[in-house]
Amino acid sequence: METKNTLVMDAQILDAHGLRKGSLLIENDKIIEVSSSISPAGVDKVINAQGKLLIPGLVNTHTHLSMTLFRGVADDLKLEKWLNDYIWPLEAHLNGEYCYAGALLGCVEMIKSGTTTFNDMYFYMDHVAEAVKEAGLRAVISHGMIDFDDEEKRKAEIKESKRIIKKCHGGADGRIRVALGPHSPYTCSRELLEEVRGLADEHGLLIHIHVAETEDEVRQVKEKYGLGPFAYLDDIGFLGEDVIAAHAVWLSSSEIHILRSRGVKLSHNPTSNMKLASGVSPVEELLECGVCVSLGTDGPASNNNLDMIEEMKIAALLQKIKSMDPTSLGAEKVFEMATINGAAALGMVDEIGTIEVGKKADLALINTRKCNLAPWRHPVSHLVYAASGCDVETVLCDGEILMENGKLKSLDEKYVIELAESAAEELTSKA
Amino acid sequence: METKNTLVMDAQILDAHGLRKGSLLIENDKIIEVSSSISPAGVDKVINAQGKLLIPGLVNTHTHLSMTLFRGVADDLKLEKWLNDYIWPLEAHLNGEYCYAGALLGCVEMIKSGTTTFNDMYFYMDHVAEAVKEAGLRAVISHGMIDFDDEEKRKAEIKESKRIIKKCHGGADGRIRVALGPHSPYTCSRELLEEVRGLADEHGLLIHIHVAETEDEVRQVKEKYGLGPFAYLDDIGFLGEDVIAAHAVWLSSSEIHILRSRGVKLSHNPTSNMKLASGVSPVEELLECGVCVSLGTDGPASNNNLDMIEEMKIAALLQKIKSMDPTSLGAEKVFEMATINGAAALGMVDEIGTIEVGKKADLALINTRKCNLAPWRHPVSHLVYAASGCDVETVLCDGEILMENGKLKSLDEKYVIELAESAAEELTSKA
Repeated sequence: METKNTLVMDAQILDAHGLRKGSLLIENDKIIEVSSSISPAGVDKVINAQGKLLIPGLVNTHTHLSMTLFRGVADDLKLEKWLNDYIWPLEAHLNGEYCYAGALLGCVEMIKSGTTTFNDMYFYMDHVAEAVKEAGLRAVISHGMIDFDDEEKRKAEIKESKRIIKKCHGGADGRIRVALGPHSPYTCSRELLEEVRGLADEHGLLIHIHVAETEDEVRQVKEKYGLGPFAYLDDIGFLGEDVIAAHAVWLSSSEIHILRSRGVKLSHNPTSNMKLASGVSPVEELLECGVCVSLGTDGPASNNNLDMIEEMKIAALLQKIKSMDPTSLGAEKVFEMATINGAAALGMVDEIGTIEVGKKADLALINTRKCNLAPWRHPVSHLVYAASGCDVETVLCDGEILMENGKLKSLDEKYVIELAESAAEELTSKA
Repeated sequence: METKNTLVMDAQILDAHGLRKGSLLIENDKIIEVSSSISPAGVDKVINAQGKLLIPGLVNTHTHLSMTLFRGVADDLKLEKWLNDYIWPLEAHLNGEYCYAGALLGCVEMIKSGTTTFNDMYFYMDHVAEAVKEAGLRAVISHGMIDFDDEEKRKAEIKESKRIIKKCHGGADGRIRVALGPHSPYTCSRELLEEVRGLADEHGLLIHIHVAETEDEVRQVKEKYGLGPFAYLDDIGFLGEDVIAAHAVWLSSSEIHILRSRGVKLSHNPTSNMKLASGVSPVEELLECGVCVSLGTDGPASNNNLDMIEEMKIAALLQKIKSMDPTSLGAEKVFEMATINGAAALGMVDEIGTIEVGKKADLALINTRKCNLAPWRHPVSHLVYAASGCDVETVLCDGEILMENGKLKSLDEKYVIELAESAAEELTSKA
């Protein structure tokens, strides 16, 4: 492979290590130099970052990307009605083509709002992988498995997961990794969960699962197994450092202890938890206990967008009102959740999440000359509390420029919107 | 005055009356025709609104606009520390020039995110009025009065309010109205509040006040007067249909009854209430009781932006999590809060807040061909849950185009940002 250099010149660099000024030299997919001044001589591509804020590409640790197709299809409803009357009837008619179209739309939305890595659980994941590959993003993908104690269903789910592992793991120049995606402790049998644990150990894969999202789930799991969801998962030897659990709203203090001692990673989804009235995760307490809590938008049918900058603000606001303490979950902490904690949650802490020599060039540049960001004075505060996804101007992933000055490079936005709209229309007409 | 016609052609029109397709003919400042098809022949200006959503200009019923200068200066702090250590020391050095610069920046931000009318309380309000006039927006402005039981201070505050009434009321072709702005029942003496009531009756002016924002305020008022803030205000004959009270977080059920029977209008400020951990207003209950609840961002030092589209989303999410019921405060209701309820709160229900013949042409056009709004299917849901201020493309106020296809017409954005930044820098260096 020929060497290609990109220089990001004169940026304000912000990551979990703080704020500094400097330039970045990228060789192929990696950052090879960060210093106060780097000469542009002989560099293939120079990005002038004067007046821009450079941050690590944001990490969205819980999504169902293809659900962009269901955006706005059902809001302001009880979870049961939302699932039974709207989501499930539509999902019954999904196919690979539709999931590809929905995922591609989600990729456009993520690039445009500064996200470069995401953790996705859904169906037809080889088609989602195709969208990720074309978009140029980085992703952990998992086939969502539900067996409801049905052995035939369990076998089929495991088979599909194995197919996706074989077909997609390590794909798109290593940007795609496959994880195992048992849906949750109340929709998966103990046998399925144990088989997943075995496969994760065997193949060295992450496990992506929903846990303790609603009070009703906790009630169901307690009725069936006599333990809270995390206590039950621990009891069957399921938990470990390779588990990333989404939601984690309803936790006992002994379960918080279990999370810490097992090194379980969490994905906090504040907008979805508010929109579906699931509850408020004790994020501040979890972080103080040393649990790794990252941030996710959840699927676009329960959010209804994929804007991680908005998600940071809502996360901070929600913790403050939960604790009735305005010092809860400050801007710096929530920014860490969306960057380095996300990297850690996905087992990529050596590769992404901060701006350092040796890490992947996954980056977002934010235009600081916007009316909502003036006066430009406290970058992390402005990013979390005043900005939104549309203030992102330029995005790189794996050293490739995916968007430059608001213009997508890897995808044709108009085409993707039309593709997704016609897929959504076809799908809706079938349901 | 010469007649000027503007045609907004082939829009999807959304207001509190619902969704329909149509065109709008504007003569000077007013909508004179709404129908399925209007010929562009002989019209001075045609705006092609195909593929756009046309909504009433949003109404932000509680702001302190010039506080854009303090954006990001202090976050994640207790209210007392925030005020004592940051905001008050800076406010001590304010002057008309700075307030003008800050207000102008706020006007840019509001235009760019679809707000056309706002209700502002702050200082040097004649300078704020100048900014409103130049920006082309519609505003109710009030001098914020605090006397802390000091008679000299009270006289000075009333004098300043009278000066602003005389100088600014009815200004900018009637787009500016002056209200009376006693800060709150805990910072204003009974004498000041009674004098304000008298002046409001005499001049037919609105009263803009903060009430029941924090639990501590309720405690203070109860200690001093033996009643909750609204009960006390009612007791002294202060309340009426011309009162717009911001926050209204801590209310007894008898106070909710008082609000309804007196016809008091409220401005709900969810982001500020969350960020400062003030509490959660019982908005759903208030609306059910027939109280007019509108929406406001509060000042940019406690939000930290002026994006009413974001505010709608946060309002809906906050009520759902408060009540643990996802059907609380649906998209339609929160959209009403930001439009027709805002108009009603400001006594402008016959002039703005919906798109109807005879009303002012205060309008915002939203680009529906955005990745975060695809598939385009449920406009009010997409507006509230998936959009953000930056999806607004074109804005009219009083029949004038203030922004067209993202480009400001009335103000020079770059100049305004620079002006505000240098004002903020000067001000900070003095404090």
